[in-house]
Amino acid sequence: MKLLEERILKDGVVLPGDILKIDSFLNHQIDSELIEEVGKEFYRLFKDVNPDKILTIESSGLVLAYATSICFGHIPIVFAKKTYSSNTGADVYSVLEHSYTRNVDYEVQVSKQYLSKKERVLIIDDFLAKGEALNALINICKQAECEVVGCGVVVSKTYQEGEERIRKLLGYDVKVLAKVKALYDDGRIEIEKQDV
Amino acid sequence: MKLLEERILKDGVVLPGDILKIDSFLNHQIDSELIEEVGKEFYRLFKDVNPDKILTIESSGLVLAYATSICFGHIPIVFAKKTYSSNTGADVYSVLEHSYTRNVDYEVQVSKQYLSKKERVLIIDDFLAKGEALNALINICKQAECEVVGCGVVVSKTYQEGEERIRKLLGYDVKVLAKVKALYDDGRIEIEKQDV
Repeated sequence: MKLLEERILKDGVVLPGDILKIDSFLNHQIDSELIEEVGKEFYRLFKDVNPDKILTIESSGLVLAYATSICFGHIPIVFAKKTYSSNTGADVYSVLEHSYTRNVDYEVQVSKQYLSKKERVLIIDDFLAKGEALNALINICKQAECEVVGCGVVVSKTYQEGEERIRKLLGYDVKVLAKVKALYDDGRIEIEKQDV
Repeated sequence: MKLLEERILKDGVVLPGDILKIDSFLNHQIDSELIEEVGKEFYRLFKDVNPDKILTIESSGLVLAYATSICFGHIPIVFAKKTYSSNTGADVYSVLEHSYTRNVDYEVQVSKQYLSKKERVLIIDDFLAKGEALNALINICKQAECEVVGCGVVVSKTYQEGEERIRKLLGYDVKVLAKVKALYDDGRIEIEKQDV
């Protein structure tokens, strides 16, 4: 997605530890005009898979899922919660994950009442690097016996193992709006140009 | 807001400890059609105060702020982050708050670069009970020397001290889309009907 690639090149910030910050338009400040376009793009990519519901994870995922839901004629959104205390009850689907950015374990949870067997779920998230968050969301869909009909992220670090890990889980590719090929110590960001 | 009042009466769940759960349409599953209407209502209530920016807090606040931003012609959104570790740096505005629901202290943070002196800020959030989250957001705006030109919440528990606390801070009333007068042990919810 050209508009997004340009925005990342313009406003993305490279921090030590291989971190790409896009706080100025998605992860802290939100540019709703850009996010509206992201929603349209996810709709274009996934309109043929006919999802019943969008699954995402807090916090930034919410606006991505919302913008996409609008294009799909207001299909419901469910957002998984991250909790750092282990208070798993019988009424939630839950997966333990590790955050490499923050170096802590956390529990990803979705209440059982909001995912139903055989539901067609579209998973949307902001970042794909090692693939922890998407792995947790896919795992939760398996627990709920729903069908993951598509998976889309805004940014992928294509030089990490996430895309391959998720492809193996799903049997098909994650759709990526902006593919980051490399981050350099001098602050440069290298993006793999895509057609659209 | 009648549509919202009806929805709370229909789908709100009362839990022990004076908790009102609206997980089925806002705080876990999101009904984007309803949230779109909430955005329009916030626009109607605040269009005359001419905000430059919307400030909210993760997680559910994001979709409320987004839906409102769209109506205001895409003004920027900033969402405050909740962190349970004390990693306050020189580059953030920060307030320590207490969550009565979870009985933990947490830090509310906004990066200094996303709030500017004299900016006209509209604060939007989901719940108002004791007023911790709004108090933190207003306090952060004071630190940043911006002007809080309006403050709106989806649900207020009018029998708690939050509305009065926030009125004293702001010098004017919080706009509330649904006013909850009482929650009963048998699961009943009493709502103060408003005109719109």
